[in-house]
Parts: sequence; C-alpha cells; structure tokens
Amino acid sequence: MLVIKIGGGAAIGEGGYANFAEDLAQIDEPVVIVHGGNAEFSDLSRKLGMPPRMITSSSGRVTRYTDAPTMDAMLMAYCGKVNKRLVATLRAAGVNAVGLSAIDGGIATGRRKPVLRGNEDGKPKILRDDHAGTLEVVDTGLVRLLLANGYVPVLTPPALGEAGVPINVDGDKLALELATALGADGLLFFSDTPGLLRDRDDESTLIAEIDAGQPEAALAAAGGRMLVKVEAALGAVERGVGRVVFADGRRANPIRAALAGEGTTIRHATTVAAS
Amino acid sequence: MLVIKIGGGAAIGEGGYANFAEDLAQIDEPVVIVHGGNAEFSDLSRKLGMPPRMITSSSGRVTRYTDAPTMDAMLMAYCGKVNKRLVATLRAAGVNAVGLSAIDGGIATGRRKPVLRGNEDGKPKILRDDHAGTLEVVDTGLVRLLLANGYVPVLTPPALGEAGVPINVDGDKLALELATALGADGLLFFSDTPGLLRDRDDESTLIAEIDAGQPEAALAAAGGRMLVKVEAALGAVERGVGRVVFADGRRANPIRAALAGEGTTIRHATTVAAS
Repeated sequence: MLVIKIGGGAAIGEGGYANFAEDLAQIDEPVVIVHGGNAEFSDLSRKLGMPPRMITSSSGRVTRYTDAPTMDAMLMAYCGKVNKRLVATLRAAGVNAVGLSAIDGGIATGRRKPVLRGNEDGKPKILRDDHAGTLEVVDTGLVRLLLANGYVPVLTPPALGEAGVPINVDGDKLALELATALGADGLLFFSDTPGLLRDRDDESTLIAEIDAGQPEAALAAAGGRMLVKVEAALGAVERGVGRVVFADGRRANPIRAALAGEGTTIRHATTVAAS
Repeated sequence: MLVIKIGGGAAIGEGGYANFAEDLAQIDEPVVIVHGGNAEFSDLSRKLGMPPRMITSSSGRVTRYTDAPTMDAMLMAYCGKVNKRLVATLRAAGVNAVGLSAIDGGIATGRRKPVLRGNEDGKPKILRDDHAGTLEVVDTGLVRLLLANGYVPVLTPPALGEAGVPINVDGDKLALELATALGADGLLFFSDTPGLLRDRDDESTLIAEIDAGQPEAALAAAGGRMLVKVEAALGAVERGVGRVVFADGRRANPIRAALAGEGTTIRHATTVAAS
C-alpha cells in the first residue's frame, strides 16, 4: 500500500492533478492520497480581505494565525476547491476516488491550542481563538473500509478538535501518521522541489538516498525545515513504513518516477537482504 | 431508513445544525443527509466579486449561470464550509457523520448543458461554459457501504459530468433520487417554511396531509414551485418511498416534529391499513 502526499503549493495546482491521475490509473496496489491546499487558501484569504498573519514563536517557528473566519476559508479552499477538483480529475481518469477531510468519519482528531503567542512583524502578540491544533488520534477504520472496497481515499486537513471545532493540522504529519498506522510500503511526499537538497538553492545538491540505519551524515547536512522532514521520515521508517520518498510533484508521471528512484529515498539499505 | 434534505437558505444556517444534530443523535434507524448551501454560495460569490447572474428561460424557469470560477465558489461553499461545519457539529453530538459531495465515489453523475439561453435583466442572452447539468445516474454503492458500517453519509451537490467537470445539480432532486433508489421509509425536506402553503404568504394555510392516492385537490391548489415539489413527492411515493414530508428547518427538534406529523405529509392514506 502507498500513501501519497501532494503538496498544496502553487507549482502543482490543477494542471498537475492530471499527471497524478494518469499514474494512479496504472497502479494496482491500494493507495491513500493526502493533499495540501496552502496556495489556494492564501489566495482565497487575500480575496476575502484576510491576508495571512504569520506569528513567529520564541523558538523561531512560524505559524499562521487561524481565527474562525480564516478556518472557514481553509475549509473552503482545502475541502471544497482543492479536494473536489482533484477528485473530479481522478475520477475522469478512471480512479475510484472518494474525497474526505480528516474531520469525516473521525479520521483524525486532536487538541486545539487556542492561544498563540509570538511576534508579528517584530511586535510581541498574544492572539486568541486560534484554530491550530495538535494531531492526536488517527482512526484508520473508514480508510480501511474504503480501501477494502476498491476506493481511493483522498484526504485533507483540517481535523476535528473538541466541541465540534475544526483544527488546522499539518498535512505532512497527517500523511506520516496514516502511513504508519496503515503499515504502508511507501510514503511519497510530492512538492515543488526535486527532493531533499543539501543546498536549498542548488538542485544539483539533491540527496538521492538516505540509509535509515546510518542517517548521521544526512542529519548533519540537513538544516531547518529539511531537518524536520528527515527526522519525521526516519521515524516513519523505524515504525515500519517501507520507504519514504521526497519527490518532484511538478513533472509528468510523478509517482512512477518517485517509485523508480528519482528524488530522495529514505529506507533501510538492508531491507531487501534481511527480508 | 430516512433521507433528510436540509435546505441551504440563510434561515437554517450554522445555528440550526445543532438542532438537527440533537435529533439525529437519538435516531436508531439509518439516515442519509443531503444539504444545500445556496445562501453561503451567494454570500461567497458576492464577496469574490461574482454576484449571482440569474437567467430566465422562455418557459419562465430561473437558473443561476455558473461559469468555472463560479463553480469553484460553489465547491467552496457547499463542499467546504457547509458540508464540513455540518459534519463537525454532527460528530460533536455523537453522530458518526461522513461528508461527501455527489462527485465522490460516483454517487451522482449527469450531463452538462454548457449553453444557457434566456433573458438576463430583460435582455436576451446566450451564455456559454455553464456548469449546470441534469442528474442522470445515482449509484448507491458507497452510500450503502457507509450505512452498513454505521456511518451517516452527509451529501451535497455538485455531481460529476463528463471529462471531470463538476455540474450544478438540484439538491432536492438528488435527495429524491437517492430516497427512491434506497427505498427509503421517509424523505424529509427541511426549509424555511412550515410546509406546503396554499397561500405562500400565509402560514395558516398549511396543508397538513396529501393522500397520494387522491392528490387532485392538492395539485389543483398548488402553483409554481409548490406544484413542482408536490409532483416530485407524489412520484417518489409512487416509486416506493414511504412518505415525503415538507417541514420547518428553523425550529428545535425539527426531525422529531416532522416525524410526528408537523409540516405537510404526502403518503398513501391506506399505507398502514394495507401493510
């Protein structure tokens, strides 16, 4: 089984959905798709007069402040436009897609963190009614039911917090937790880069392979957001996911290319010999 | 089994979802929900600078012109905000809700009518790239799978046309076709009136009951949009739906009240005696 995360950057967008659809129509094994929607979310928010408000925590982490009207915009962008346009494209290619948010059927629940502290434009701020949250429980019941009956689940944030409040959870984290809970053979992350780069401004510095048994060199080379990604991928492999691939979502046949070794593959180099 | 249509007028809205949730948490029989989203759709369209364009056909039928950006707004309002806010409210009340559009899993497919002819503001117009469509096939496979596994499907237009294009289909029609295909015991339509009125401006003219075996008096009294509703309801009863109720969606315990006889009930008066 494969879990495929399609990033929500502007570079993939609607034109790219058909590339994924073409590959998925050829794949026989069960597939779960998780997608983002950040570019559409930001675009809609701006059009509605609610430009993104970014808050930097004391540890340097940047978070988007999400009040209730902004959560409505997130629901509209992620669960409305992106989810349904992607499902429509997949179905037209013969993929038996079913689009769901992580709210639906209890797929993912978590805890809300309503108070956001940090700096906005250099000034200290305490913002209330934030709809960010921490993903706590992934329930694979509905996903497994759909897979067992030949459907391809297409999932998106948000998840559900207490008292019926949707919470903004990270799509990469959702994909990782699902892949781990489902014991996926592969977890493929598609975004607008060719994979993990030693130098983020130089695509020739692509790291082709990281041996999960000897990750020290890769961890030493990784910084910032890349370090977070490598650590999360290593964790997933330790918990039983066959391999994690970071690959380019902007090209034709993105899934076929990633499975053939393009991008960055993280796995135990000894997996084949030991099994 | 019950099929429940919750209208998309502003009068029900988010505050009313909790009333439906409270009743649904008490109901043991399988339930399928279909909802509209017209008030949210119009509100979003206006905010995005795309006010509704209404076209009147030669036969007097008024249709909303839906080009591709307007379809995106429909997806955002119906499948994003309304569907997920409703599902979140239901889940918080203990209802095992799963939100889907009719695009998902092939629930409803139809034929697009891309050219819209008629009058706009009194002037003849031919508008192309319309995303209106006619519902042609309802596939209950996914809905039955969810019902058999204890889920409450929460469905919304649009449906899927050819070549991956979403089409705007009527939510009432979707509910009727589903209720008929599922052989529902009851089909309840909730909107912002107490039921079918002889005089639409006088709530005291409510028609409490229409005998499907002797509908002539009701049909003679009905005009315009009400006639369409009565004819559709009679058709559903003829095709095996136990009863159709038009009831008030603005009150507390709306489902309990409708099942207890409030609103307008259409059925065969001899149903109980004959069974």
